[in-house]
Amino acid sequence: MVGGTGKPDQWWRWGDRHRSFPPARAERVRRYLSERLQTGTSLAPPPVAQGPIPPSILRESRLKGLPGFSVDPEDRLRHSVGRSYYDLLAARRGSVEHLTEAVVTPRTNEEVETVLRTAEAEDLAVIPWGGGTSVVGGVTPLKGEHRAAVTLSLERMSAPLWVDASSRLARFECGILGPALETHLAGHGLTLGHYPQSFEFSTLGGWIASRSSGQSSSLYGDLAHNVRGLKVVTPLGAMDWEHPVEEATGPTLESLLVGSEGTFGVITEATLSLAAVPSHSVYHGFLLKDWESGCEFLRDVARLPYPPAVIRLSDPEETALSLVGREPPSALRGTLEKKVMDFRGIAPGKACLGFLGFEGPRDLVEGGWRAAGAILRSYRGLDAGEGAGEAWKKERFLLPYLRDYLMEYGFMTETLETGCSWKNLGPLYRALTQKLERAASSLGTKAFVGTHLSHALPTGACLYVTLLAPQPPNEFLEPLQSLKRAAMEAITENHGSLSHHHGIGTLHRPWTRQRDSPAVLDTLSAVKRTVDPKGIMNPGKTLPQKEDRR
Amino acid sequence: MVGGTGKPDQWWRWGDRHRSFPPARAERVRRYLSERLQTGTSLAPPPVAQGPIPPSILRESRLKGLPGFSVDPEDRLRHSVGRSYYDLLAARRGSVEHLTEAVVTPRTNEEVETVLRTAEAEDLAVIPWGGGTSVVGGVTPLKGEHRAAVTLSLERMSAPLWVDASSRLARFECGILGPALETHLAGHGLTLGHYPQSFEFSTLGGWIASRSSGQSSSLYGDLAHNVRGLKVVTPLGAMDWEHPVEEATGPTLESLLVGSEGTFGVITEATLSLAAVPSHSVYHGFLLKDWESGCEFLRDVARLPYPPAVIRLSDPEETALSLVGREPPSALRGTLEKKVMDFRGIAPGKACLGFLGFEGPRDLVEGGWRAAGAILRSYRGLDAGEGAGEAWKKERFLLPYLRDYLMEYGFMTETLETGCSWKNLGPLYRALTQKLERAASSLGTKAFVGTHLSHALPTGACLYVTLLAPQPPNEFLEPLQSLKRAAMEAITENHGSLSHHHGIGTLHRPWTRQRDSPAVLDTLSAVKRTVDPKGIMNPGKTLPQKEDRR
Repeated sequence: MVGGTGKPDQWWRWGDRHRSFPPARAERVRRYLSERLQTGTSLAPPPVAQGPIPPSILRESRLKGLPGFSVDPEDRLRHSVGRSYYDLLAARRGSVEHLTEAVVTPRTNEEVETVLRTAEAEDLAVIPWGGGTSVVGGVTPLKGEHRAAVTLSLERMSAPLWVDASSRLARFECGILGPALETHLAGHGLTLGHYPQSFEFSTLGGWIASRSSGQSSSLYGDLAHNVRGLKVVTPLGAMDWEHPVEEATGPTLESLLVGSEGTFGVITEATLSLAAVPSHSVYHGFLLKDWESGCEFLRDVARLPYPPAVIRLSDPEETALSLVGREPPSALRGTLEKKVMDFRGIAPGKACLGFLGFEGPRDLVEGGWRAAGAILRSYRGLDAGEGAGEAWKKERFLLPYLRDYLMEYGFMTETLETGCSWKNLGPLYRALTQKLERAASSLGTKAFVGTHLSHALPTGACLYVTLLAPQPPNEFLEPLQSLKRAAMEAITENHGSLSHHHGIGTLHRPWTRQRDSPAVLDTLSAVKRTVDPKGIMNPGKTLPQKEDRR
Repeated sequence: MVGGTGKPDQWWRWGDRHRSFPPARAERVRRYLSERLQTGTSLAPPPVAQGPIPPSILRESRLKGLPGFSVDPEDRLRHSVGRSYYDLLAARRGSVEHLTEAVVTPRTNEEVETVLRTAEAEDLAVIPWGGGTSVVGGVTPLKGEHRAAVTLSLERMSAPLWVDASSRLARFECGILGPALETHLAGHGLTLGHYPQSFEFSTLGGWIASRSSGQSSSLYGDLAHNVRGLKVVTPLGAMDWEHPVEEATGPTLESLLVGSEGTFGVITEATLSLAAVPSHSVYHGFLLKDWESGCEFLRDVARLPYPPAVIRLSDPEETALSLVGREPPSALRGTLEKKVMDFRGIAPGKACLGFLGFEGPRDLVEGGWRAAGAILRSYRGLDAGEGAGEAWKKERFLLPYLRDYLMEYGFMTETLETGCSWKNLGPLYRALTQKLERAASSLGTKAFVGTHLSHALPTGACLYVTLLAPQPPNEFLEPLQSLKRAAMEAITENHGSLSHHHGIGTLHRPWTRQRDSPAVLDTLSAVKRTVDPKGIMNPGKTLPQKEDRR
């Protein structure tokens, strides 16, 4: 279904070393940005540096008997770096701050229990590792107050356990990667329909731990909604349940464990509710004259009784950038630039490009697109055709490679996302854009701030911001951090969530719990103390820390 | 939209004293059952007895200053009796075991906090009260280890707070009753679409506390899915949040509080995601030749990309009883009994009657029914027409009055429900029926066991069992309890949930937590100790007690 080996093979960049964003197009984007941000030609690819890695302090310890125990330096380095800009910049500069001391790869729940018991006895922090694609520092091997951190990879717990096609349910070990999961389900005519951008390199367990949402969630639902059973191995013991349909059986720990980001235990197995593989699909690009009418269009489309799987709209900035990055001569680009804008009053700098993808039985797919088309016309928008839609679909997992390209030329490349109601979407969008531009300006730099709306539901949607600016070669993360602070301010002031689908990890942690009352924080802390009394599970991630308290 | 004052005015029966199940039809059902169960004519209406109520031990306490404080005997009695068979039999026999010592009716969150603080100081248990319609002992005023129990009624916290039609969200105080909530929303063109059988007399807070599911949940979703914000006042303090769309912001307490049955705090406000009021609806009755093909039909229908709101099927026993209870001359009854059965080989004693209700825009409603009709034909089923469907819809909240009628004639009338996957549905249905009949037989009695399938989803459905048997006049609950034990055994052995939408309360509590691991039980206990350190919140409900531990 997709390419990729599933195993990232270079720790300082995305995915598969044999793939990339088409270089000619990446170069056009780079030139466009250099011009826009007036970086001149001073930016050049920095070398990937990595100094000698100190030998593991655990190399002679009793841990050697643990399953798949490794203190190999490259193994350790690979399992110390996630995929945030912070991680990748450090990896490229050879300044990875936190190194895991060992990697273990258990094969069974019992072996996971053994690892946790040993870690408790040996005063070690345990960092669960799925695909390692966290962009929020979720897999950073912080040791907390312990002697060292070890990384527990689910790589060898990735088997399909059963498929019950008669109930559209299936259970998997959680180390399974997206493509393997979908390939297995496709053999039964089923799909989970969960396609985060990291799909090829992230795991079921990581999706659950971070409460992930896929690009097709408007139809297939968010992952949390499709989790119908879990096994989580915690230091306190295993937790396990299944509920094929809703149950009225009192309080459950489900919302504590889905989204737990490894801080309570290791999510080892999950039962999922599934959909039939769609027999038909129609993906269309469309254009709207401005962001405001585009958002209204998408709100109406998200409320169709049979909604599209994919609902997206780029703002004028992102639209412009994405047209630069397209294949020339792009039919869409031609259409947009030459013919349509004049004809319809769609002006460059205001036009917004979007995509809708309907999936399912032929009559609903065709009927859905007809209904969406009628709404599009009522907003004086323009159908940009199936070619544009199919092109988006084909490249839906490709953008992280463009990020690598830009990073190599010295661009700071950060993304952040937030969820909000339709009512708050306009003010939040404006605040985000303004505050980020102002923050860049007070740093004495120019920044590209492009946004798209995605994951639309009848109640609201996700705003996804791409932030590009020159990375000062003599500085590390301070410039980005001050931009990020500006974004967090805009979000908290305008009722956005601090993350829609990336998670909290270490990077968002200081902000997240600000909204929670002391009663909520105390309860979360009590759960943490009970489930993980020695605090070995993924220290410093998502849960409130002393320094975060108000 | 519906009748009813919303306030039950007789504590020993359902709902509104001015309404009833049509007596001639109720009497036919009674005669049918008397014949089937060979009760002879010995059963006769018992008088409703209520001895003198001892004066409240709190009448002179410092509690008198609490908002809406009442020790009026009838007030106390009304707020001591839920709507389980256990409750109603005790109420009718004048042997209500647990009486609340006082009723308080706060108007604000601050007043709720005051009640909880006072209760802690005065060593009192607090029993939250919405509509008082729990059928599982959820509102029984158990005092636990405290001096006495007081009931906290949400009656004066029932206001709509805001409606954000642009985001299809609304917030209400949780004492609001179903009809008031829907009437308010209808003014904005919106609906929650949550129609439990108790709709007219139950509250939003009760629905959330018990993790309720409505008869139309196949389209509108279960309540838990539509809760997008909560305020819960706990002894530890208030917990409050809102998330219009999914968030990836770490663990939350949501699944602990939705379904908490009053054991952690008082659910005072909720934000709900809504749907548009449907412009069209089509309700049809249908007949299938047997239960097995009927279940397969409903599974296929539940998987239509645009599913019906209501999906139901009675087994042959319930079908027979429901036909007896229909208006004569019933078109449906005539059709079923005279014409169809011979024609199609649908035999009395095997035929199953069901209902589908499509709601939404005209094209999808019509297209949906066309698709369902084609599936129906493929199972050699028969469309019983819109008349039958509309009749079901009209009477959807009426059955509890029939229960009252039968109770008055000495019938034990219990219902129980369980959720399971499609795969387990057949074995679970057979085990339930067999074990209940065997248990009745070892009690030396005959029992009517009728079941319907409802709340169907692509993954599974709810089995809802009605149990009718002669209530031995000289015994109390022992006969029912041994029947219930048989049902619970069937459920636990066949992977059913211990409740699909009624909740746990006191009646299911001993069984529920048997499936939970020690780690889950310890975590729930830790949450309870943290949130409610003195254990004042609704003691003895849903949460594991010492005596339930394995």
